[in-house]
Amino acid sequence: MTTKKYPKGGEFLVKETKPQDIFIPEEFSEEQIMIKETCRDFLEKEVAPLLDEIDNKKDGLMVELLGKAGELGLLGIAIPEKYEGFGQDMNTSMLSTEIMGTYSSFAVAFAAHAGISTLPILYYGTETQKSKYLPKLASGEYKGAYCLTEPGAGSDASSCKSKVILDKDSKHYILNGQKMWITNAGFADVFTVFAKIDDDKNLSAFIVEKTFNGISLGLEEPKMGIKGSSTCMIFFEDCKIPVENLLGERGDGFRIALNVLNNGRLKLAAAVLGAGKNVITNTITYANERVQFGKSISNFGAIKAKMGQQCIRLFAIESAIYRCSNDIHNNITELMAAGMSKEDALIHAQKEFAAESAILKVASSEALDYVVDEGVQIYGGMGYSSEAPMERAYRDSRINRIFEGTNEINRMLVVDFLMKKAFKNELPLLVASQAVAKELMSIPDFGEIDESLFVRENKLVANFKKAALLVSGAAAQKFMQKLGTEQEILMGISDIIADCYLSDSVLLRVERLIELKGEGNCKEQIAMAEVFIYDAADRIHKNAKDALNSFAEGDELRMMLLGIKRFTKHSGLNSKDKRRLIADKLIEENKHCF
Amino acid sequence: MTTKKYPKGGEFLVKETKPQDIFIPEEFSEEQIMIKETCRDFLEKEVAPLLDEIDNKKDGLMVELLGKAGELGLLGIAIPEKYEGFGQDMNTSMLSTEIMGTYSSFAVAFAAHAGISTLPILYYGTETQKSKYLPKLASGEYKGAYCLTEPGAGSDASSCKSKVILDKDSKHYILNGQKMWITNAGFADVFTVFAKIDDDKNLSAFIVEKTFNGISLGLEEPKMGIKGSSTCMIFFEDCKIPVENLLGERGDGFRIALNVLNNGRLKLAAAVLGAGKNVITNTITYANERVQFGKSISNFGAIKAKMGQQCIRLFAIESAIYRCSNDIHNNITELMAAGMSKEDALIHAQKEFAAESAILKVASSEALDYVVDEGVQIYGGMGYSSEAPMERAYRDSRINRIFEGTNEINRMLVVDFLMKKAFKNELPLLVASQAVAKELMSIPDFGEIDESLFVRENKLVANFKKAALLVSGAAAQKFMQKLGTEQEILMGISDIIADCYLSDSVLLRVERLIELKGEGNCKEQIAMAEVFIYDAADRIHKNAKDALNSFAEGDELRMMLLGIKRFTKHSGLNSKDKRRLIADKLIEENKHCF
Ligand SMILES: Cc1cc2nc3c(=O)[nH]c(=O)nc-3n(C[C@H](O)[C@H](O)[C@H](O)COP(=O)(O)OP(=O)(O)OC[C@H]3O[C@@H](n4cnc5c(N)ncnc54)[C@H](O)[C@@H]3O)c2cc1C
Ligand SMILES: Cc1cc2nc3c(=O)[nH]c(=O)nc-3n(C[C@H](O)[C@H](O)[C@H](O)COP(=O)(O)OP(=O)(O)OC[C@H]3O[C@@H](n4cnc5c(N)ncnc54)[C@H](O)[C@@H]3O)c2cc1C
Repeated sequence: MTTKKYPKGGEFLVKETKPQDIFIPEEFSEEQIMIKETCRDFLEKEVAPLLDEIDNKKDGLMVELLGKAGELGLLGIAIPEKYEGFGQDMNTSMLSTEIMGTYSSFAVAFAAHAGISTLPILYYGTETQKSKYLPKLASGEYKGAYCLTEPGAGSDASSCKSKVILDKDSKHYILNGQKMWITNAGFADVFTVFAKIDDDKNLSAFIVEKTFNGISLGLEEPKMGIKGSSTCMIFFEDCKIPVENLLGERGDGFRIALNVLNNGRLKLAAAVLGAGKNVITNTITYANERVQFGKSISNFGAIKAKMGQQCIRLFAIESAIYRCSNDIHNNITELMAAGMSKEDALIHAQKEFAAESAILKVASSEALDYVVDEGVQIYGGMGYSSEAPMERAYRDSRINRIFEGTNEINRMLVVDFLMKKAFKNELPLLVASQAVAKELMSIPDFGEIDESLFVRENKLVANFKKAALLVSGAAAQKFMQKLGTEQEILMGISDIIADCYLSDSVLLRVERLIELKGEGNCKEQIAMAEVFIYDAADRIHKNAKDALNSFAEGDELRMMLLGIKRFTKHSGLNSKDKRRLIADKLIEENKHCF
Repeated sequence: MTTKKYPKGGEFLVKETKPQDIFIPEEFSEEQIMIKETCRDFLEKEVAPLLDEIDNKKDGLMVELLGKAGELGLLGIAIPEKYEGFGQDMNTSMLSTEIMGTYSSFAVAFAAHAGISTLPILYYGTETQKSKYLPKLASGEYKGAYCLTEPGAGSDASSCKSKVILDKDSKHYILNGQKMWITNAGFADVFTVFAKIDDDKNLSAFIVEKTFNGISLGLEEPKMGIKGSSTCMIFFEDCKIPVENLLGERGDGFRIALNVLNNGRLKLAAAVLGAGKNVITNTITYANERVQFGKSISNFGAIKAKMGQQCIRLFAIESAIYRCSNDIHNNITELMAAGMSKEDALIHAQKEFAAESAILKVASSEALDYVVDEGVQIYGGMGYSSEAPMERAYRDSRINRIFEGTNEINRMLVVDFLMKKAFKNELPLLVASQAVAKELMSIPDFGEIDESLFVRENKLVANFKKAALLVSGAAAQKFMQKLGTEQEILMGISDIIADCYLSDSVLLRVERLIELKGEGNCKEQIAMAEVFIYDAADRIHKNAKDALNSFAEGDELRMMLLGIKRFTKHSGLNSKDKRRLIADKLIEENKHCF
């Protein structure tokens, strides 16, 4: 065994991380900032002025925009230079995804193309497949689509009915079936299609070109939002696919689909972050401008509380997003140093952090829904009007809790991924939860509360993890293999774990930031961490209590409830004043500024 | 002083009500049910088949539908028979509003017409005005609009700039100004317009006919939802209004506007209830039908939890809506028995319950947003598609938190109304909160917990009110007149009070229901009350804690926090199983059934 240098997936739950060991977005290099600015310039110049045209699906516009992004290299940021990409690392690719996430219809088209459609080929393609497709996908000459979902197979993706048989000539596969909800379908040139060969139990993956025969499209699906993004059914009728277009091995399809989604979820979180920051900027601009009762509505406490909270939620997910991205980056480096190919390292590292990615998919999509909802509310009547930006933001946001795995599925995956790691002895969950159970019996430490900066918060975050271990340990022991049918409990546990990860990350980030900038320059960030953790304590308490009340009894229940109370005990915070502090900074800057 | 027979507004906070003293929707008379069925038949026959046409604003369609509703008498349910209305009481009018609320674009047009546009004339009109306008408004020959909001005057409605001067002939007023966001503007014949005469500080109200000169309309406002409802700016340029069309006294306008909104808010709650029930029916139908992983998704615990919670939230607001409506009804009866005119009695009784109406406006609009949000989520990808009903429901719902006073304004009004009653010695808030403060010093009663039905819940609800009194009393004492600037605290207090009212109402309803039907026939309703109160305890705890932490300190804070803990202490509930019980009933009935 080699000595492990970098954090592994799920370890946040059982280990303490040092601020120096995480990456924070305030540390991006000049080169990374330059790429970010390129993305931003492109968006402001090419996309922002055309939001209505995009959503009205102006003929050829999205294709043109993707083409322009391709020319600037923005479609190939994660593609190796060898295939005419930009060859950038995970963090840079996340940063560009964040910026490209600003305007959602375009963002979804971009992500479907550069993410889930291109990556299967990058990760699993043969050298020939890669040389053939990646340069054209990177340049935007080809547009991509990812075709997994079917009318009868959504969350249960492996139940796809699309079927492939080998042609008599043995040179082609013949594909029959239909795919639904396919982003970019209307104009894509290359489709990654998942279907079963013969009567296989498992899916296989295929690279299908639009020019192959037997492909037809349904009408554009009318949708609540991201109206500029193309979504259609695709019908395959005796579609002939050259055998060399099988992607990966026969039966590998579901694994490919899922591994690509590990990346997709984290990228979704980054895109959502970008969208959210833009919403906050619009919100504060409007709140500063709009006068009622003789003052800007940004002056009202009720409005400050909302704006403060919008920032807190984005700040927390942002902290975790870049921590996770950099942990993956480090893992890749490590795996490659140990001799693994870059592609395999990517797959492995992303899988390693699958739980964190699922947490972030859920947390970010729900944070954005909160941010847009309050955005609408702060705009008042104008929030409901299509002539102001909130109305679109509200509709666009809602998709994120549905695709890339619904949030219910992702919540269950969080627990599932972690439990699997525990079973494989990759994560000492059992030992850790036994230690917590033992601690429950001990006399609590009623030592004086140290009020110096973050002492309380550090203790709390450590305790949050104990709460997570306590509830999940007890539930696992009680239900064993049947835990899967107790979904309500799983959801609760998943939310507790998410709060652990976010609290941990936001705290580490601010500690790191203070090291870099000094405490005096981080007042608002400190406040954000404090409020987030203060509220997280109550959320965890509630989730834990509900879960325990629903399966434990008698003395055992009482003891565990006491434990949870102890682990979420907070000495109190004036969250009103903290939110005002954050809002006041926003008001001053008149834009999102954290 | 006469002996008071019926509950007064705000009393729920300081008095115990008996189940026999409230009205529950299970007690509607046969005649009321018949009217309900008439509304339902009309909707299913005339409106439901045309939802797309309505939202596409098919020329003349909304006018035609309102006309048909008028022919059936549905526009005049609350108008006295003398003016060719149906002369029904408050409860019946609420019930019909609930049903008419099912399809939101139509519902909003209906409510704007039959509610806020017609009522000012009914309540404040002279005999001549009433005879002239009410019959035509009741029959639908005239359509009405309510014109208060202006570009610069939304929440701050009294800051309207629209101005009226007396014409030289002294026979006309001349109106100049513009109104914004006016529902039904596109086709209304009669406008209730609020504007200031000369340099008055206060608004006056006018009945303006479309045929008067100088009225022009802006374009239809493109909106997030309720797209079939007409919303335009209205411009008045030297619009001549006969002097006899002044409504009420000069300077009475703001009072008229506000009193009409007291009714409007409660009606909004009823309409939202109707919309919500329809959403639940669609949700369960879909969840029973949609199969993933080999079973109907309604079988999954995660989905049951959502559906159970959808029902719980609607059940709670429904309990409070009809309790409030009947309390108003009783008040009207009492006032009329004491010699007041029916119209004055209506105004007074509705004002008496202004706090409850504001609570219900907020609680119902937020319940509906929850219900539609989970509806979308349960539909998965189909929830995002305009081809299934959830997408529209989601967009339509969002307006309810904005109009009839934003939810921020209404939250503040709740506290304001109650405090004013206290100052006027109409409500013994001060005495009650002093009693609570005293109780804090006493040794808590650690008696055995009685687990028989609702003993715990009754104690809890009584305690919730103490929590409300504790926090509001302490805040009032601390900030005195400056409490208004501590909006975050006001919002928290308002939410606690709302939870008191809803908990009280849902519990009383189920107790009453058990009296009528027997415990064995109310299993799901019992579960709904239990879960609502269990969760309310935690919400109240959180709201109270946040408020107290933001203004109290030291020993006083510690003592109050202990008090809050005591007042929200719950012995525990398996809310998972309770929600499953509720959901299982839904699954069986395949429609909303409570
Ligand atoms: C705009 C849009 C773009 C899309 N783009 C693509 C694309 O490019 N490529 C692609 O392949 N797909 C795409 N999808 C499909 C998307 O991934 C699916 O909609 C999603 O996976 C959910 O599947 P479903 O819609 O069939 O919902 P269902 O799976 O039917 O889910 C319905 C509800 O049941 C719940 N549920 C399902 N199973 C369980 C369970 N076991 N336990 C608990 N709850 C459960 C879900 O959480 C949800 O609440 C897109 C969808 C949309 C709307
Ligand atoms: C579809 C639609 C239909 C409508 N129909 C009608 C109609 O028929 N007739 C009519 O007269 N009006 C109508 N309205 C107007 C509606 O009543 C107003 O939009 C609403 O009162 C809010 O006013 P506003 O939009 O100006 O928001 P603003 O008052 O500008 O409010 C913006 C934000 O500031 C907050 N805010 C404002 N003041 C304060 C304060 N003092 N403290 C704390 N927060 C504050 C609000 O809560 C909100 O979050 C309609 C509006 C819409 C969108």
